[in-house]
Amino acid sequence: MPIDTNHLGLYTDFYELAMAQGYFFSKRNKESAVFDYFFRSNPFNGGFTVFAGLQDFLDMLSKFRYSSSDIEYLSKQGFKKKFLDYLTNFQFSGTLFSMNEGELIFPNQPIMRIEGNILECQLIESLLLNILNFESLIATKAFRIKLVSGDRPFTDFGLRRGQGFGALHASRAACIGGAQSTSNVLAGKIFNIPVSGTQAHSWIQSFDNELEAFRTFAEVHPDNTVLLVDTFDTLKSGIPNAIKVAKEMEKNSQKLKAIRLDSGDLAYLSKKARKMLDDVRLDYVKIVASNQLNEHVIKSLLKDQDAKIDAFGIGTELITGKTDAALDGVFKLAEVNSVPKMKLSENIEKVTLPGKKQVYRFYDEEGLFFRDAVLKENENPDELKFIYHPVHPEKFTGLYKLKYEKLLNKVFDNGNVIHQQKSLSDIHNYLINRANKLPDEHKRFISPHIYKVGISKKLMEIRNKLKNKLEQ
Amino acid sequence: MPIDTNHLGLYTDFYELAMAQGYFFSKRNKESAVFDYFFRSNPFNGGFTVFAGLQDFLDMLSKFRYSSSDIEYLSKQGFKKKFLDYLTNFQFSGTLFSMNEGELIFPNQPIMRIEGNILECQLIESLLLNILNFESLIATKAFRIKLVSGDRPFTDFGLRRGQGFGALHASRAACIGGAQSTSNVLAGKIFNIPVSGTQAHSWIQSFDNELEAFRTFAEVHPDNTVLLVDTFDTLKSGIPNAIKVAKEMEKNSQKLKAIRLDSGDLAYLSKKARKMLDDVRLDYVKIVASNQLNEHVIKSLLKDQDAKIDAFGIGTELITGKTDAALDGVFKLAEVNSVPKMKLSENIEKVTLPGKKQVYRFYDEEGLFFRDAVLKENENPDELKFIYHPVHPEKFTGLYKLKYEKLLNKVFDNGNVIHQQKSLSDIHNYLINRANKLPDEHKRFISPHIYKVGISKKLMEIRNKLKNKLEQ
Repeated sequence: MPIDTNHLGLYTDFYELAMAQGYFFSKRNKESAVFDYFFRSNPFNGGFTVFAGLQDFLDMLSKFRYSSSDIEYLSKQGFKKKFLDYLTNFQFSGTLFSMNEGELIFPNQPIMRIEGNILECQLIESLLLNILNFESLIATKAFRIKLVSGDRPFTDFGLRRGQGFGALHASRAACIGGAQSTSNVLAGKIFNIPVSGTQAHSWIQSFDNELEAFRTFAEVHPDNTVLLVDTFDTLKSGIPNAIKVAKEMEKNSQKLKAIRLDSGDLAYLSKKARKMLDDVRLDYVKIVASNQLNEHVIKSLLKDQDAKIDAFGIGTELITGKTDAALDGVFKLAEVNSVPKMKLSENIEKVTLPGKKQVYRFYDEEGLFFRDAVLKENENPDELKFIYHPVHPEKFTGLYKLKYEKLLNKVFDNGNVIHQQKSLSDIHNYLINRANKLPDEHKRFISPHIYKVGISKKLMEIRNKLKNKLEQ
Repeated sequence: MPIDTNHLGLYTDFYELAMAQGYFFSKRNKESAVFDYFFRSNPFNGGFTVFAGLQDFLDMLSKFRYSSSDIEYLSKQGFKKKFLDYLTNFQFSGTLFSMNEGELIFPNQPIMRIEGNILECQLIESLLLNILNFESLIATKAFRIKLVSGDRPFTDFGLRRGQGFGALHASRAACIGGAQSTSNVLAGKIFNIPVSGTQAHSWIQSFDNELEAFRTFAEVHPDNTVLLVDTFDTLKSGIPNAIKVAKEMEKNSQKLKAIRLDSGDLAYLSKKARKMLDDVRLDYVKIVASNQLNEHVIKSLLKDQDAKIDAFGIGTELITGKTDAALDGVFKLAEVNSVPKMKLSENIEKVTLPGKKQVYRFYDEEGLFFRDAVLKENENPDELKFIYHPVHPEKFTGLYKLKYEKLLNKVFDNGNVIHQQKSLSDIHNYLINRANKLPDEHKRFISPHIYKVGISKKLMEIRNKLKNKLEQ
C-alpha cells in the first residue's frame, strides 16, 4: 500500500472536497470561519480523557497538500478544473488554538479552536478528527494502565493486533499515556520511542530442547536476556531451565534479566516463579507478564492477588483501545464572518456552543483542579463570578478569586507551526504532573465522579438567543 | 508521520529482529521452517470470518526491505554489522500457500502456510498478523452488515473514527465485505474504491438559512445532490426545504438524488419522510440514513420497524470492528527441517497442529459446505473416511465419497508473487458466492451454529505422539 506521506490532501472525506468545491464556486471561500474540536463522552466509562495527537496532526497538516497525481485523480472524480487549480497550491493558512498535548480533557469543552477561511477549515476536518480522536483514545487507555501499574514499566506489544498502520500512531500515543517502550520497530524509528522485545515460542520450539534454546539466546543477547518460560511447562521445565541458564551466565559475569510468563494463571505462576528464583539467590531476575492484559486485569493481579510481576507487555487492548475502539470527537462550526453559528438537536446535550471561545481551568484552595469554564473568547476570567451547567442553568458554581489558567493556546499561526515540539517523555511527564492535580475520585474506574465543565453567563445568553431565533 | 512504504522491513516487532539475529549468529538461518497462520475464535460472536488482506499483505511483503536509514537505525539499537549486512539485501524468498481472499474461514484451521528459511519466516510474522488480522476483522464486520442490508447499498463513512492510517486498510476490507463506496478519498485512490459523500451540518449552518444552503449545493453538484435534513428540525424545516429544492431542480430537468437523516429516531423519521416525499410525487428521492449504525441496528430498522431507508452511511463500528477491535490470529511454528513441531499449553484447545498441512472443504449432497478437514500435506483426501474433533476424538464424522476442494493454494513461490490480483468487487463477488453455500444457521447473529473443522486420523496421531514425547 503506497502512501505518499508528503501529500496528504486526499486523506479526507469526499464530502469535505464536495463542500470545498461548493464554497469555491459560490465565491464564499474567503469567508472567515471558526470551528471547534470537542468530544462528548470519556472513553472506557472513565472520568477523564488524555489529549494526544497534536504534534502528529500538526506534522501531517503541513503535508496536507496535493500532488499532480492527486489532482489527476480528483479530475477523474469529476472535480472542476478551476477548483483543482486552487487545490494545486493549497496549504492550510489558518490559525489553531489548542490544549497542550498530554492535557486532561473533558467532554463538551473545546480542545482545539480552528480559524481560517471556511474552505480550508472544512477540508482539514477529517484529518484532524482521525488523528486526534485515535491518539487521545490510546493515550487514555495507556494512562489508565499506568494508574494501576504504577512504577512497574509496561511495553506496547500490540503491532500484531493493531489496526494496520494505525499501530504506528497507537505506539506513539501509548508512550504519552505511560508505555515505557514499544515492540513496533518502525514506530520506534519514526517517533523516537525506545524499542524492546526478546523471543517467541517459535524460537524455543525450533531447537531440540528448551535449555538449548535459552542458552543460545543468552549467548547472542547476553545484555538483554528475557526468557519465555511457558512453551512446554512453566513450572516443571521453563523456570528450571531459565535458572540453569542464569547460573551459567553468572559464571561469565552476566545476568539473566528476566523471565516472561505468557499463559496460565499469572498470579499463581508469578508467585511460584518468584519463590523458585529467590530460593536460588536469583532475586535480581525480574518477572515479566503478558497475555490479554488490560487495566482491570492488572489491577486485580497487583492489588487483589499480590502477583509478583515486575513489568508487563500489553497488546490488543492497549493498541486498539478495545472495548471502545474510538473516541467520539467532532468538529463543529461556531462562527462565520464573526457571526456565531450553532447546530440545534433534538437532544439538548448535543446543541453546540456558538462563537469564538476560550477555556479556563480553575483551581481549588488546595491547588487541585476544581472546574473548567468555557467563556466567550474576549471575556475577562477575572470578572467571572459563576459558571453554569450547560444544560441545567439552575446548577451553578462560584469561582470568584480562584486561581485559573488559560487552556487554549496558539499552536499554528496563519499557516505556520509555532508549537514547540516536545519529546514523548516530556509530554508524558506533563500528563503525570496534570494528573497529580486531578482529584482521585475522577480517576477511579467504577463510577468515576464527573469533572464539571461550566459555561459563562454571557456564553449561555448568546446560545439561548441564537437557539430561540433558530427555533422560530 | 513519514512512512517509507517502499521499505517496510522495520514494520515488525523488535523480537523478530532479535530472534533473526539469534538465528543468524547461531548459523541456523538456512534451516527450513513451516509456520501456520490461523485464528482461534470468530469475531462478533459470529459463526464465520471473512478472510481479507491477502493482496495488501503480498504488496507489502514485496516492500519488506531495509533502506540505508533503516540499517543505520538498527545499528544504533545494537544490532551487529554482519547481521545488518545480511538485512541490507534481505527479501523474503519463501513460499506461501493461502486461502483465497474473500474466503469464509473458521477457527483453528490454517489460513496460510508459510515456508522458507526460519529467519525470513520469523521476520515477516508481525507484518502478516497486522494486515491479515485487521482486514479480516473489518471484512467480517462489513459482511455482517451486508447480510442485513441486502440490496440496500452502504458506504464506509469511518475515516474520522478510524484508527489513524488504519482507516485505509479498513476501507479496503469494508469493500470486500460489501461496502459499495467509501468517503475516504485516499483509500479510494490507493485501492480503486468508488468514493462518495455530500455535505456536513457546517455547510448548512454557514449559510443564512437552510434553503439557501440546499439550493447552493444543488447548483454546484446537480448530479449528486444529497441533502442533509436534520441541522435544525428534520420534519418542520429540513424535509420541506429539500422538497422545495427538489421541485426547483425538476424545473431544470434535474433530480434530487436523496435526503440524509443523521439523528433522531431513524425508523420514525424515515417513514414520515417517505410519506412527505411521496405525497408530492418525489418517490424517486431516496432516503439515506447514518448515525451510529451497526448490523444489529440495521436489522432492527429494516426487519422489525419497516424503516423506509434506501441506503446507509456507516462509520465507527464498521471501520474499527467495534466491539471486538481485533481478530486473534496467530502465527505458529509447525515444522523445522522437516521435523514437526508443536506448542503445548495448559489449555488443550491451544495445543497447535504440527507439520505441513492442507485444508479441504467438503460439500454435502445439496452442494452446501459440510465440513472442513485439516490433513497432513501429503495425505490423499480421496482416501479420507473420517475426520475427528481436534480435542474430542470420540466425535467424528464420515466424509467418504463427498465432493471436496483444496483451500490452500500457492500464492507466492520462492520469493515471487504468483497470486493473480483481483479487483475488490471480484473478491466481494467471490465472498457472496461462497456465503451462498454456507448454511444459514452459521450466519445468524444469535448463537450461530458452529461450522465444524476436523482433523485426519494421521494428523491426530502425529500430534498425540509429539505431545506425549514433549510431556515426558
